[in-house]
Amino acid sequence: MKVRRSNRLVDMTRYLLEHPRTLVSLKFFSERYGSAKSSISEDLSIVKHTFETWGEGQLKTIPGASGGAVLTPFYSKENAERAIANLVREVNDDSRFLPGGYVYLSDLIGRPDVLHQVGQLIATQYVDQDVDVVMTVETKGIPIAQAAAMYMNKPFVIVRNSSHITEGPTVSVNYVSGSVKRIKKMELSRRTLSAGANVVIVDDFLKGGGTLNGMHSLIKEFDANLVGMTVLAEGTANGKRLVDNCTSLVKVDAEDGDQKTINARPGNFMETVFGKEN
Amino acid sequence: MKVRRSNRLVDMTRYLLEHPRTLVSLKFFSERYGSAKSSISEDLSIVKHTFETWGEGQLKTIPGASGGAVLTPFYSKENAERAIANLVREVNDDSRFLPGGYVYLSDLIGRPDVLHQVGQLIATQYVDQDVDVVMTVETKGIPIAQAAAMYMNKPFVIVRNSSHITEGPTVSVNYVSGSVKRIKKMELSRRTLSAGANVVIVDDFLKGGGTLNGMHSLIKEFDANLVGMTVLAEGTANGKRLVDNCTSLVKVDAEDGDQKTINARPGNFMETVFGKEN
Repeated sequence: MKVRRSNRLVDMTRYLLEHPRTLVSLKFFSERYGSAKSSISEDLSIVKHTFETWGEGQLKTIPGASGGAVLTPFYSKENAERAIANLVREVNDDSRFLPGGYVYLSDLIGRPDVLHQVGQLIATQYVDQDVDVVMTVETKGIPIAQAAAMYMNKPFVIVRNSSHITEGPTVSVNYVSGSVKRIKKMELSRRTLSAGANVVIVDDFLKGGGTLNGMHSLIKEFDANLVGMTVLAEGTANGKRLVDNCTSLVKVDAEDGDQKTINARPGNFMETVFGKEN
Repeated sequence: MKVRRSNRLVDMTRYLLEHPRTLVSLKFFSERYGSAKSSISEDLSIVKHTFETWGEGQLKTIPGASGGAVLTPFYSKENAERAIANLVREVNDDSRFLPGGYVYLSDLIGRPDVLHQVGQLIATQYVDQDVDVVMTVETKGIPIAQAAAMYMNKPFVIVRNSSHITEGPTVSVNYVSGSVKRIKKMELSRRTLSAGANVVIVDDFLKGGGTLNGMHSLIKEFDANLVGMTVLAEGTANGKRLVDNCTSLVKVDAEDGDQKTINARPGNFMETVFGKEN
């Protein structure tokens, strides 16, 4: 079967998007479409040009016999700004107010359109870094971790709050839950993380930072390395925060006065990722 | 700006994949690319033909002034069979053996390549049905729910095992956990599910069926409708199972004799979705 360029471009785009940050060889595409490697190379430069034009990522082409292409999805500054503004607009809604300075976000972390943006934003932040695994803690961090992991094409691991028979042997640490000042325990299946692995921590909400701090301790127990920490939303800490260097997509205050109001604005993502002038 | 066909095809494919099961208007694409609607229509028939050829889904084009296109990703029978065979191969590994007839699957549900396949398989099963929301219970069902929800472009909701301040008001039910015969409680945030909503339940592992049964009770409490239930893996029930009509991608026995072995084979997915002759 010989496939025409227009059909190749459609299928190639789909295939590359399903295998981001993975070297797909010229040979693979050439056999898949019954086309010469030179034609495939031309196709790839069209794909490359298109992703750059729309600010959706970069296609790196590797020349030579064992060459191919790697698609790395990420946002241009303009697209990132638009995605952050969308998130702020979604969060900025007084009906999200919950007692105690908390904010209702469960609907957002279950919406595919929101998760696409959150995932691509986090992938953008770590685009130039060597990441082996994304880590989060159950429950509401999971969708954030999965969304980021899909765009980065790296596995994600879920830290549990209590023992589960279905995890096999685990390693656990104690941590201070910042918001309630209680000692809690978190644990991770022994076989999910290797020594020396480069780990990005993500979560849905940062308040005191106790949970993020606990995950950092866990990373040390596994002799792994922390690359960075990113949360969907950063609330107001009561007292000193237990982590610094955490990136947030959105900042939000929940004010518990007569008027229960939510005030959302961009977090420090744009400064952190695109530099000070933002 | 006028964009050439080859570039339009690449960007259009990316855009449609990020907005599956959504009507994207001819007008939108025509403005995005500075191209005539007639050219866009020709582009769309190329996209349509390509997805059909590779068995990756269907593009429905809606003619007329308010027309456009809807991309519905799903697997052809051949692709579904290949994806199921891949999953069986991954699960069929004695090192997954855990005491008590359980199977270690946490690594698989954290792998983007596996989740892409699981998500597209579940989307294939419900392709002709009216689904409003995907439901799962914490913790390990979440990645399955999210993967399916991304391909179906529907929200997913997470049933919790205990009360959480960040969920706001909730509705709860008691259920019998099939494997340990204990009465447990599960609950769902009141604002996540509307009366009359059509719900697909997914989970990672089916043993006794107590958890799935509990979610079904919860759906009734919300006056919502159950469309179907699908699990990644079905184990061996000790005694009578509490649900029937559950679809499984993989069936797996964990035999706890002298030799602790895992025996994985295809679940009932292919019969359920593509008919009896499988």
